[in-house]
Amino acid sequence: MKMNEIMSTDRYEFTMGNGYLEEGMKNEIAYFDVFFRRNPLKNGYTIMAGLDQIIGDVENMHFEEEDIEYFKAQGIYTAEFLEYLKNFKFTGDIYAIPDGTPVFPNEPTITVRANLIEAQILETLLLSHFNSASLVATAAKRVVLEAGKPVMEFGSRRTHTKAAIDAGKNAYLAGCSGTSNEATGRYYGVPTLGTMAHSWITAFDNEYEAFLKYAKHNPENTVFLVDTYDVLRSGIPNAIKVANEYLRPNGLPFKGIRIDSGDLAYLSKEARKMLDEAGYQEAKICLSNGLTAETIRDLNIQGAKVDSYGIGDNIAAPLDRLGGVYKLVALEEMGNIVPKIKVSADEIKTINPGYKKVYRFYDKKTGYALGDVVALASERIPKDKFTLVDPTDTWKRTTITNYEVRELQVPIYQNGILVYQEPTLKESREYCTTQMDTLYEEVKRLEKPHQYYVDLTTELLKLKRELIASTTESVTTKEKSIGRLW
Amino acid sequence: MKMNEIMSTDRYEFTMGNGYLEEGMKNEIAYFDVFFRRNPLKNGYTIMAGLDQIIGDVENMHFEEEDIEYFKAQGIYTAEFLEYLKNFKFTGDIYAIPDGTPVFPNEPTITVRANLIEAQILETLLLSHFNSASLVATAAKRVVLEAGKPVMEFGSRRTHTKAAIDAGKNAYLAGCSGTSNEATGRYYGVPTLGTMAHSWITAFDNEYEAFLKYAKHNPENTVFLVDTYDVLRSGIPNAIKVANEYLRPNGLPFKGIRIDSGDLAYLSKEARKMLDEAGYQEAKICLSNGLTAETIRDLNIQGAKVDSYGIGDNIAAPLDRLGGVYKLVALEEMGNIVPKIKVSADEIKTINPGYKKVYRFYDKKTGYALGDVVALASERIPKDKFTLVDPTDTWKRTTITNYEVRELQVPIYQNGILVYQEPTLKESREYCTTQMDTLYEEVKRLEKPHQYYVDLTTELLKLKRELIASTTESVTTKEKSIGRLW
Repeated sequence: MKMNEIMSTDRYEFTMGNGYLEEGMKNEIAYFDVFFRRNPLKNGYTIMAGLDQIIGDVENMHFEEEDIEYFKAQGIYTAEFLEYLKNFKFTGDIYAIPDGTPVFPNEPTITVRANLIEAQILETLLLSHFNSASLVATAAKRVVLEAGKPVMEFGSRRTHTKAAIDAGKNAYLAGCSGTSNEATGRYYGVPTLGTMAHSWITAFDNEYEAFLKYAKHNPENTVFLVDTYDVLRSGIPNAIKVANEYLRPNGLPFKGIRIDSGDLAYLSKEARKMLDEAGYQEAKICLSNGLTAETIRDLNIQGAKVDSYGIGDNIAAPLDRLGGVYKLVALEEMGNIVPKIKVSADEIKTINPGYKKVYRFYDKKTGYALGDVVALASERIPKDKFTLVDPTDTWKRTTITNYEVRELQVPIYQNGILVYQEPTLKESREYCTTQMDTLYEEVKRLEKPHQYYVDLTTELLKLKRELIASTTESVTTKEKSIGRLW
Repeated sequence: MKMNEIMSTDRYEFTMGNGYLEEGMKNEIAYFDVFFRRNPLKNGYTIMAGLDQIIGDVENMHFEEEDIEYFKAQGIYTAEFLEYLKNFKFTGDIYAIPDGTPVFPNEPTITVRANLIEAQILETLLLSHFNSASLVATAAKRVVLEAGKPVMEFGSRRTHTKAAIDAGKNAYLAGCSGTSNEATGRYYGVPTLGTMAHSWITAFDNEYEAFLKYAKHNPENTVFLVDTYDVLRSGIPNAIKVANEYLRPNGLPFKGIRIDSGDLAYLSKEARKMLDEAGYQEAKICLSNGLTAETIRDLNIQGAKVDSYGIGDNIAAPLDRLGGVYKLVALEEMGNIVPKIKVSADEIKTINPGYKKVYRFYDKKTGYALGDVVALASERIPKDKFTLVDPTDTWKRTTITNYEVRELQVPIYQNGILVYQEPTLKESREYCTTQMDTLYEEVKRLEKPHQYYVDLTTELLKLKRELIASTTESVTTKEKSIGRLW
């Protein structure tokens, strides 16, 4: 079924759009921020990803005749709005932090400045791409950092077939060496790799024959899956036999083995010994089987002999989600940017109002990232001395000097025109690596990582508190009508 | 970017296909089973889903000129295989359990009978659809059963935009009343619903005005989101004010409110009182905010006043995955079906060999499902008396009588022709409900559910053990070369 996938959008974006149009608010310019409140996977950072997918969708944003008919049949939209949709084209501005950047809770990763209707209609797609892509990239980076060796993304079968294509791409962005997914290879130029399934082995009369035939047809990719029957008593002996009897006599390389079950620490050490003793020091050992960053850490601690990893579930289908949200933070009223707020029972969960920018401070001497600060767009960040203020415990302050400061968001769209010189996937991948190098190891720790500072400027904090106070005052019933602090 | 999404397939399916073709095994008929080893989400059952998506892909399976060029450029495929791919069309048989059926670990949910190459090339797509769709449907069913009230799927923003379209569909299959996703509505005919975002509220000068304007433009959908500032002191009073001043005088319904933060048990009870006291007994209360089946159970225990639920994360992006696998279980050799096995250190993880069928036994008196049995396809299941044998603890046996027995898999493809009369989504949804009614409540318990019986026939168990024994004997090194039981 050929779909207009732009339609993968929440209904309320359209009903609100219809309302705004009817209210004559079509030209009201709004500012929306995308941000999240916690890193996924109890991680210390999140890898920004999905901006490329967002650009793809914004470029392609349109509604077809049949889509309009579909909306019309719902009987809830005005003819004017349906006409508006028919001619829909994004005409606003988008600022975003580039793919591959480590980002942190409570900072705007993407900011949309557009008329209310356009800004609203973008919401679902923006969040969907940002959340799904950054989650996969973050999961991948955790594994890649822990592995310190090539990691292949093998998880297509554990996620939706269409999500799998981007999962392979986002895993590569975050440092994986490649993917098993051929659509990712074909459309994003990501290296693809793979060996054989257990079915290849069981399709032949015996394991030796299966290996031999595989070697014949894949002389450049002689990596044997050795755990169909018994790794140490059958798989490796048969692999070595094929190497002795076929590969070596024919001058072909014995690339290695893959172990996909059993105790990988123990088996890999025994395997290494057996391969070495047979004179195949060059044969690599690839491990797979539900590996996580944590199991890889433990394999390293226990001295597993491993040259590369194949990761299925835990990159393409991580056991967490990224909760990025999209909040109205300001409206332009007669040329002024008027900040808006949504209050929550917890100050920390109340959004940061206003049109803002994010800055990252780097220590000039060491190159390390010291922290980020979220500021109103109108503020100037001094170049020589700055005091970071903890947004919750404001008595926690650090004054820094001798830093370089970098604005994180860059212009992506201006007046609906794509102004961003999109980096290649490879460039983003390298950029991701260099940016990760600026983070302290403590932030990259797998468990209970150090919380990277994301502070608000004094001015933004003041504005936020004023808005909370005035909002709280203006609620209809001024008295606490209930005896509990809900 | 227009993609041939069939390419979302693991590389090794193609390299193995190439090998089989070169080996002259193109016409070797293989049997592959899809099955999983545990229910996701610690659940007592899994809802079969994604068969419709699989059919969509099989019908559309083809490789385009550019795909062939892409493969060719890899330099690892023979010209013969590239030609084969160019003309690829599935010509085999598929048997599957229909969408909406509760299914259980270790039974074949899908069986493919096809030549080795075709069967292998189908693997990734089959697993990807089955795993992602059934996971979502299972998560949805858990919530729907616990809610006992309408549940809307709202989670598009938490998953990949393309996965979201099917997530809405699979949630509906499992009993959700609808989705927020308009592509799901447009392409699958699923009812879509939605109210307003917090941005609608903050885009106006005050909450009262926002509600009033919303009511004006959505007179049939007057559900107000009441937690932007303060549910009890602002949101509900303003909603009631709009009802008093605008809805009632104009003869319009006050449909209800949605609460999206705070303590939903407490707030909903207070909200109910306020609405009732204002004379709006008909106004419904919709709750959302990261709800799970477990929180819904607890809300019910604490007497929350609720008429419907909006579920984001926990249906479209469940915190688990389904680990369906695809294993070669038999090959046809000179007209005989020769069973194949892949051994594992644990007998329970060793696959069930042979071409098999699954039967479900229903108690004739109560209609309850008593258990499933996996049998060799050649076996006859007696109609009057049957002894279920636990596959692990074979001393556990139950003899049943007075049952009806139903074969669960039905023919989907025969010789590449779609022979399955696809039910409509609505029919599958109703079928799912009636099938769930046949399960004992103990199997549907949220936590530590009763383990539904999936037994093997004595004949299958015998075959499995024989194959394990002969495989173990045939491994190259017969002696336990190592001192530990790996």
